[in-house]
Amino acid sequence: MAITVSLIGANGYTGQELLRWLKTHPHLTKIRLAVRQDAGKVVDALLRQPSTRVDHTYYAPDDPQLKNADCVFFATPHGTALANAASFLEAGCKVIDLSADFRLRSPAVFKKWYGLEHDQPALLREAVYGLSEINAEKIRQARLVANPGCYASAVQLGLIPLIQRQWVQSPIIADVKSGVSGAGKKLSADYLYHEVNENFRAYSVSGHRHQPEIMQGLIEQGAPPDLDFVFTPHLVPMQRGILATIHAKKTSANLDDETLHRAFSETFADCPFIHINAPGNLPQTAQVIHSNLTSIGWEVRRDSAMMTIVVALDNMVKGAAGQAIQNMNEMFGFAPSDGLI
Amino acid sequence: MAITVSLIGANGYTGQELLRWLKTHPHLTKIRLAVRQDAGKVVDALLRQPSTRVDHTYYAPDDPQLKNADCVFFATPHGTALANAASFLEAGCKVIDLSADFRLRSPAVFKKWYGLEHDQPALLREAVYGLSEINAEKIRQARLVANPGCYASAVQLGLIPLIQRQWVQSPIIADVKSGVSGAGKKLSADYLYHEVNENFRAYSVSGHRHQPEIMQGLIEQGAPPDLDFVFTPHLVPMQRGILATIHAKKTSANLDDETLHRAFSETFADCPFIHINAPGNLPQTAQVIHSNLTSIGWEVRRDSAMMTIVVALDNMVKGAAGQAIQNMNEMFGFAPSDGLI
Amino acid sequence: MAITVSLIGANGYTGQELLRWLKTHPHLTKIRLAVRQDAGKVVDALLRQPSTRVDHTYYAPDDPQLKNADCVFFATPHGTALANAASFLEAGCKVIDLSADFRLRSPAVFKKWYGLEHDQPALLREAVYGLSEINAEKIRQARLVANPGCYASAVQLGLIPLIQRQWVQSPIIADVKSGVSGAGKKLSADYLYHEVNENFRAYSVSGHRHQPEIMQGLIEQGAPPDLDFVFTPHLVPMQRGILATIHAKKTSANLDDETLHRAFSETFADCPFIHINAPGNLPQTAQVIHSNLTSIGWEVRRDSAMMTIVVALDNMVKGAAGQAIQNMNEMFGFAPSDGLI
Amino acid sequence: MAITVSLIGANGYTGQELLRWLKTHPHLTKIRLAVRQDAGKVVDALLRQPSTRVDHTYYAPDDPQLKNADCVFFATPHGTALANAASFLEAGCKVIDLSADFRLRSPAVFKKWYGLEHDQPALLREAVYGLSEINAEKIRQARLVANPGCYASAVQLGLIPLIQRQWVQSPIIADVKSGVSGAGKKLSADYLYHEVNENFRAYSVSGHRHQPEIMQGLIEQGAPPDLDFVFTPHLVPMQRGILATIHAKKTSANLDDETLHRAFSETFADCPFIHINAPGNLPQTAQVIHSNLTSIGWEVRRDSAMMTIVVALDNMVKGAAGQAIQNMNEMFGFAPSDGLI
Repeated sequence: MAITVSLIGANGYTGQELLRWLKTHPHLTKIRLAVRQDAGKVVDALLRQPSTRVDHTYYAPDDPQLKNADCVFFATPHGTALANAASFLEAGCKVIDLSADFRLRSPAVFKKWYGLEHDQPALLREAVYGLSEINAEKIRQARLVANPGCYASAVQLGLIPLIQRQWVQSPIIADVKSGVSGAGKKLSADYLYHEVNENFRAYSVSGHRHQPEIMQGLIEQGAPPDLDFVFTPHLVPMQRGILATIHAKKTSANLDDETLHRAFSETFADCPFIHINAPGNLPQTAQVIHSNLTSIGWEVRRDSAMMTIVVALDNMVKGAAGQAIQNMNEMFGFAPSDGLI
Repeated sequence: MAITVSLIGANGYTGQELLRWLKTHPHLTKIRLAVRQDAGKVVDALLRQPSTRVDHTYYAPDDPQLKNADCVFFATPHGTALANAASFLEAGCKVIDLSADFRLRSPAVFKKWYGLEHDQPALLREAVYGLSEINAEKIRQARLVANPGCYASAVQLGLIPLIQRQWVQSPIIADVKSGVSGAGKKLSADYLYHEVNENFRAYSVSGHRHQPEIMQGLIEQGAPPDLDFVFTPHLVPMQRGILATIHAKKTSANLDDETLHRAFSETFADCPFIHINAPGNLPQTAQVIHSNLTSIGWEVRRDSAMMTIVVALDNMVKGAAGQAIQNMNEMFGFAPSDGLI
Repeated sequence: MAITVSLIGANGYTGQELLRWLKTHPHLTKIRLAVRQDAGKVVDALLRQPSTRVDHTYYAPDDPQLKNADCVFFATPHGTALANAASFLEAGCKVIDLSADFRLRSPAVFKKWYGLEHDQPALLREAVYGLSEINAEKIRQARLVANPGCYASAVQLGLIPLIQRQWVQSPIIADVKSGVSGAGKKLSADYLYHEVNENFRAYSVSGHRHQPEIMQGLIEQGAPPDLDFVFTPHLVPMQRGILATIHAKKTSANLDDETLHRAFSETFADCPFIHINAPGNLPQTAQVIHSNLTSIGWEVRRDSAMMTIVVALDNMVKGAAGQAIQNMNEMFGFAPSDGLI
Repeated sequence: MAITVSLIGANGYTGQELLRWLKTHPHLTKIRLAVRQDAGKVVDALLRQPSTRVDHTYYAPDDPQLKNADCVFFATPHGTALANAASFLEAGCKVIDLSADFRLRSPAVFKKWYGLEHDQPALLREAVYGLSEINAEKIRQARLVANPGCYASAVQLGLIPLIQRQWVQSPIIADVKSGVSGAGKKLSADYLYHEVNENFRAYSVSGHRHQPEIMQGLIEQGAPPDLDFVFTPHLVPMQRGILATIHAKKTSANLDDETLHRAFSETFADCPFIHINAPGNLPQTAQVIHSNLTSIGWEVRRDSAMMTIVVALDNMVKGAAGQAIQNMNEMFGFAPSDGLI
């Protein structure tokens, strides 16, 4: 079986990463790329990786031909999918939104963090949160998938097996670190080479948009609504990769490294993209960049009420484009790892 | 007033950093450099920064002329100062040890973490812990100063003002990040460019030597002995700089950003090397590298029992060589910032 | 048609890069990996990119099953293919050697630069130099291909179209720059993060092994044997990528940017991996890393007898593993870009 | 003797570097900082390195108090010193211009490369080119010094000893590489972390402003006016440092490494900031960054008409701020290395 796709927002970092993977996916026959500016221009990316399945000129985002696709990806700023997903769904496309437009269940919470009225409440109810390892069954039935945020993916994959088993309690501190591509292609002095190189900093300590997304996900898996969850992102002088260091209070002194190994192994059995480290080993971002893998390790401290879970993934792949393709695979009945190895 | 110094261990990263600052210190007339290998060889560093006050050949560490100094720095592996400090003190030198040999009060704890018997219990009792901003008075009287560890400096400077006021309780999570120079000049595959660049990782999660040093310091300032203190170091792909992100549970819901500003400002009044950030601003390592500054900021979270304190310093300067010179300034009655701006 | 391959030297940087590409090649059914140490151990790489076509345990390099392959790659230190290629050829395998063992036509020159007696003169005569864009026809007939060096590929691809047209004369200066992966996985103080980061240096100025390889290639294409060819490599603080800046004296004042554009376009017509930049544009390494592309640009200076050609490629792909697979494609009648996009 | 200085353009990279060195210079009593925007604001730099000699608020560039200084530095974009130097000179200040406004002898050449009419021909004739090691005597008498460009310093210091001895002829190829700080604080997509990191590129191949400056300097030292001099700059993913690799044709086959060693040692005798490498050793940028040193090495190739000279310096120090202070030292009779070690 072969499908066709449209990619809206093809020239951002996420769009480019999606394209890189879509080009060699074994079940695609046609890829149309849309960009707001440069519609009608020849696709530069062809230069780099020639592919006959990619249409040679960029479409405008409102070109009706884009609806002539089985699957549509939105790799656009927040608000674009909100305004346009409905018309693609009506045309019979399945939609995977890599922005935050359909991630948060509550329109009020969405408005608080993203500053936009959510005027598609029916679609919001219908949308499935696309964390494949947790929601695969629903994703398979979905018309509209909300692809998770990069930090949100890392933190949830590290916590959900423990949340489901009621092994963690307040406080949970997610001290997370990301390479610079997470910020996208912004022309800001903060992202000049001279400001990033040989520098390390925290940011958005007073509140980051992935915090409510993670809270929602943890609560859905059984965390108490008053969970004390602290989220602190940092910027690392490197291009790709997230490392989440999650410090969580144990509910039982009996938990140890081996118990956690069994739990993670059980929850993620048959998940080709989750690597569970042997006790004593911890993930590094270099292990996983340019792949769709998530690597998980931990240390249950003997002399403390806390345990520390460490999760590494590539923010551009498992944290964005790779996860989206994994969702496409589920939605169209392909093998989960098709086009992702 | 002018003094003479000897520097044992002149060719490690710390020794070189010390030399860089000592060369332009306004109150030094003579610097003798000792190295284990290369004794008798011409001092390379002269090439780079010519100085008439530095003796042109390296001494052997046991050369008696090294005792002909007012102040002796040990920038040596653990064990060297332990074996040799006594003879320098007997010769009338004041001694500043940049290794861990006199940092931990308990010989048993020292043995557990460093694997050495502490056979100088009298000196250990006499030694003053050289965190200048906290112990300046004792340092002024000291013959023997134990210069703090780099992580230990950052974490204690961020926590002590709060510990002294009984504003923090368990758990405290110190999620700390360091540039690569902290590891010293080791020839290990872990520190090859290809392993460090574009990579971010946690290490020593199961136990790092600075943890007991910090615990000791916090308890001396009033923390309960059963404080649940979690310490997790990470390696950042950069050369210098430490950022400590410290998550601590508040003892009162009334603490806010302004309260903390008053507390830090009060504790560190008249401390020329402590920069207190205005509420809302957070430190970055690039602000402080190549200087003796410590930059402190924080965020008291509204919807959480936790607050987050962020501390930045240069592990080679305030975390090692600069702190040592600041201690020398105190011990010899110079101004704290002499030679350090 | 599908083939099976053996890869000798699977755990060096080049071997790992080869494996990355071989895993998704559309015409392979079986890959056996051999390593000197760790034979019998489970293949780590499976962790990262699961693949059913890769045998799960490492073979010893002398395991007879390795000969049960259509194509054998040597990604080994110099000398290994020299000693072992013959037995694989006798067993009916085609051999692609990524080391230098069969690159230099003259056993005397080989001995001078690599310090080894060449005891396979018949194979040396038979071996085809695997610069695909230049030697495709011979490569298609070859049993034994000598894969070119990374610098040698960049410099020859930038010069051969001009050499063939007699447009360059002495002196030619190839001022080349490489990321650190070119040095392989050596545990040397020169390649510690602290020595490479924020540093730029020249090396091997007095003589680099790729110089005779390039000279041989240029002379075969028509350069005079007494060509004054200067080769100066540099180490760039980055992981991958080569940029060759080649300054060459023009034979005619009439040459201009457009003339060169026609020449390069003609020579490399139908070469899917050569990107010819429009006049005024110059290649950058980031354009080509993680791809098999070579990007070529130039500037014919108006007020000078010299012209400058700039070539970028990824030393690990077009400079090693990708070029080897491109050669395999030619040898087995696959499309040149199969498995390489 | 003590002097006072004004620094116009205090918040660019060059101005900040100047300030860093001026603060600890032994012969300064007062530093006034001027910036175009932010006049009247408190000086941030005080935060980082407290100093009593620096006035606490920024001046506007046209504040008359700035003329109340012995020495004025212009660390401003091209054109500012041109418009303002005269009034400072009339007020009795000595002026050191770090921009290009007084570097090129010919107003026509200046206009061609910088796009400005040079309306101060008398000052242009009076200005002394501030390459201290070459022009020290004139600098000592100067009222107005044109501080050299960073690339221009490296290339001239590497070539002048050979030019003076008539040992080089056409062509000379200066293949030069610089860290990113050379580009200044521009907010351009070209200098985003994501574009610079893990990338290496050539730029301005068709013409760079330092080319006529170098030509002028070489001709003044005896090079023929029709010298074929090729200049190619590159951008290195690092913050500071220039490495110039200069390939020049020998005038005699008798030149060898030792001959050059004698020549460089002779020309730069008593120059405290020039380090001549022993034959076989080559400079690296890490040797010299954060210092005012220039490190020079070479390789006279045996089998070629060319020799290669390699020069390293810090573009921000010897290539800008340090050189300016060295010139101030000469102009006011201080020792050349005062404030620079």
